[in-house]
Amino acid sequence: MIDLPYRSALIIGAGSGISGSLTRLLRAADLPVVVAARNIDKLAPLVEQTGALALPVDAAEAAQVERLFAETEARIGAPEIVIYNASGRLRGPLAELDPEAVERAVAVSALGAFYTVQQAAKRMVPAGKGAILLTGATAGVKGFALSAPFAMGKFALRGLAQSAARELAPQGIHVAHIVVDGSVRAEHRADPPQQPDSTLDPDAIAQCYLDLLRQHRSAWSWELEVRPWVEKF
Amino acid sequence: MIDLPYRSALIIGAGSGISGSLTRLLRAADLPVVVAARNIDKLAPLVEQTGALALPVDAAEAAQVERLFAETEARIGAPEIVIYNASGRLRGPLAELDPEAVERAVAVSALGAFYTVQQAAKRMVPAGKGAILLTGATAGVKGFALSAPFAMGKFALRGLAQSAARELAPQGIHVAHIVVDGSVRAEHRADPPQQPDSTLDPDAIAQCYLDLLRQHRSAWSWELEVRPWVEKF
Amino acid sequence: MIDLPYRSALIIGAGSGISGSLTRLLRAADLPVVVAARNIDKLAPLVEQTGALALPVDAAEAAQVERLFAETEARIGAPEIVIYNASGRLRGPLAELDPEAVERAVAVSALGAFYTVQQAAKRMVPAGKGAILLTGATAGVKGFALSAPFAMGKFALRGLAQSAARELAPQGIHVAHIVVDGSVRAEHRADPPQQPDSTLDPDAIAQCYLDLLRQHRSAWSWELEVRPWVEKF
Amino acid sequence: MIDLPYRSALIIGAGSGISGSLTRLLRAADLPVVVAARNIDKLAPLVEQTGALALPVDAAEAAQVERLFAETEARIGAPEIVIYNASGRLRGPLAELDPEAVERAVAVSALGAFYTVQQAAKRMVPAGKGAILLTGATAGVKGFALSAPFAMGKFALRGLAQSAARELAPQGIHVAHIVVDGSVRAEHRADPPQQPDSTLDPDAIAQCYLDLLRQHRSAWSWELEVRPWVEKF
Repeated sequence: MIDLPYRSALIIGAGSGISGSLTRLLRAADLPVVVAARNIDKLAPLVEQTGALALPVDAAEAAQVERLFAETEARIGAPEIVIYNASGRLRGPLAELDPEAVERAVAVSALGAFYTVQQAAKRMVPAGKGAILLTGATAGVKGFALSAPFAMGKFALRGLAQSAARELAPQGIHVAHIVVDGSVRAEHRADPPQQPDSTLDPDAIAQCYLDLLRQHRSAWSWELEVRPWVEKF
Repeated sequence: MIDLPYRSALIIGAGSGISGSLTRLLRAADLPVVVAARNIDKLAPLVEQTGALALPVDAAEAAQVERLFAETEARIGAPEIVIYNASGRLRGPLAELDPEAVERAVAVSALGAFYTVQQAAKRMVPAGKGAILLTGATAGVKGFALSAPFAMGKFALRGLAQSAARELAPQGIHVAHIVVDGSVRAEHRADPPQQPDSTLDPDAIAQCYLDLLRQHRSAWSWELEVRPWVEKF
Repeated sequence: MIDLPYRSALIIGAGSGISGSLTRLLRAADLPVVVAARNIDKLAPLVEQTGALALPVDAAEAAQVERLFAETEARIGAPEIVIYNASGRLRGPLAELDPEAVERAVAVSALGAFYTVQQAAKRMVPAGKGAILLTGATAGVKGFALSAPFAMGKFALRGLAQSAARELAPQGIHVAHIVVDGSVRAEHRADPPQQPDSTLDPDAIAQCYLDLLRQHRSAWSWELEVRPWVEKF
Repeated sequence: MIDLPYRSALIIGAGSGISGSLTRLLRAADLPVVVAARNIDKLAPLVEQTGALALPVDAAEAAQVERLFAETEARIGAPEIVIYNASGRLRGPLAELDPEAVERAVAVSALGAFYTVQQAAKRMVPAGKGAILLTGATAGVKGFALSAPFAMGKFALRGLAQSAARELAPQGIHVAHIVVDGSVRAEHRADPPQQPDSTLDPDAIAQCYLDLLRQHRSAWSWELEVRPWVEKF
């Protein structure tokens, strides 16, 4: 069994392949896990498969994030691992984007992450322990054309991650930003690992998150970029 | 007289040293200039000195930015130079920041810039011409501790700038992000330029903006970093 | 026992804490390991402790690197893991540095890495498999004052790593650049892992190298930055 | 006439479009200019056109660079502007490159720049004044496949530039690295500036160098990236 230095986990923005794989891996390590999403109906299969607890949240709302942490704490204790995995994506020419949708996209990608980091910090700083993992994207290091709102949100997330790492690492809290570069396969892979995979396997990504969680604090990474072997960069 | 390939200018977030210097330089080049800020009372001396036109705007509100552009267009024509110079700054430990103030800070630094870029793009794309300059900060490339909201806003601004440059440059519109690294002197300098200046002279910064505006489009810069000679970096 | 997808390893620039820890970890995974350095006398304790094979090399000499690979191949087979860990460090004001010493420093940090990557590529490309890990430093992403030769060498190493990753990853070869930010403890740690470590533990770094070696190729990292939790960055 | 705060210039690696344009601009500002290259025969037209002085140098040889500066000093005084414009480019798969050619390429791109910066520093530091401009390339910030030697040289050049800027700026010496992203037109442009230019105009680039030279030292840039409006990045 994987040995992790943390005892409980909260995953926000659950539902995607990465969150599912993370839930399975963390449950396999015998940690209680809360998975949170706007629509928790879609989490039913994951909950059934892993015994994780699903809670609803609109991460773009500070008050809802606060309640989620309180509820999580009541159910599994203050989460020692917090993973933010929500994104607001919006494409189109600058002149044609809807301002309200842009505001919402930035709120989901970045403000929700801030509310999450804040609630995590409130609990982890007194404990002197914890890990916060923020799921980024290539859009956070390279602003592509026709994708300004996603670039804004993911750049902001990276700025938050860097600032939080600088503030919290000396207090014993590991903050890391993972740059996922490429498409993530929607489903757990069926093919054997020897197969050439041209898209990111969510299990493989989740394993990288676990590697980060197991880093000794004398050698912490604040950022990790992962991409398929065949991906152009 | 300085010869610029543009005929009108709109500066948002006016009031700081940089905006004042820019207004003077652009007026000296005989361009009509609109300066916009939340509180235009403080712009009275600049207006009197330069003959610029002051208009009120809360840049964090999309509708107000839209009205500002319409009013500017009615008064001096569609602005061919648009400069965004507003920032939302907020300091403190992550656990203690007020979520609403964080949201506001990110809105001023980044969403206001988006609304501005959008309104500019709507006018510049059909014209196939224009320049958009976005005033950034070191916080946009390095997320400092205890300054997460400013990092989020300025990182997001840089992501917007990069995305907008990639979309708009091939349409003949020059988008540039200026990284101002260091303190800007509040006042126009009195000492001669030969004096060692340990803080950024707003006139010197404004000159760099003009250099960008005069770049030939076969050699455009999308980013420029400026700092005092004695500044650590 | 750790399960690695590679069967043999060559470590160049051995002798430092990182190389020692890597040798122990790879030997513990039952891989044959060659450790190479200019002066192999100092490797005697490591050889005795681990059963690794020590071979002499001046990595700045292309012909010696070529011979090292041939000898390694003859002794343990073509190395499937190749790690370059040599550096040329030189400090001083630009005006006072000795040009020959600068040339030598760049040769050790960067040209030696090129010769190594080249010999590795010659063997790994036909096999469609292998891993090349290059040990960098903060000096490879930030050029500090009074340290130009080290900056030149480590920047060049990073450029090599990035170019090699782009060329070789699609051929099934994992190239990664590890940015070691901070002082590495000279000795294997005696204190338990729970102790606050303010300098990089070589065992902790070596574990990160192993994590990279075990990444599934659908989620490879080409760069990893590690620093102690208390390190300023 | 352009007013520059420097009185003499040395351009190394002359012959390309950028060096020719720079020579013309600096001569138009009435500065004495030395242009240096391995083969000065090809500089004859430029010398005739501008009255610059041509001197031979193999920049990869420290002793030759030293002699070049001594000769320049004897002829036009210690150069207050020094521009390094030489590159060693080499393409091919890692496994097929000739090690000696790689060494030579890195020496031309990076070691020659070091020798140049060193000779410049020896003269500028006592004077407390001067400007050193180093011509980089996209290869200095992104290591492309099949181009490792060029990436190594240009990354090293960028590390040198950053280190030199950190050391020399507080001593009153402006060091800047120009990232030229795209193909440079070989000839001075004949078409009017209004023409859409899809490749970098050397006159336009040279103007950016002059803008850097004229920056007030309270707002210096250590790096400038230039690319054509239509260039992908």
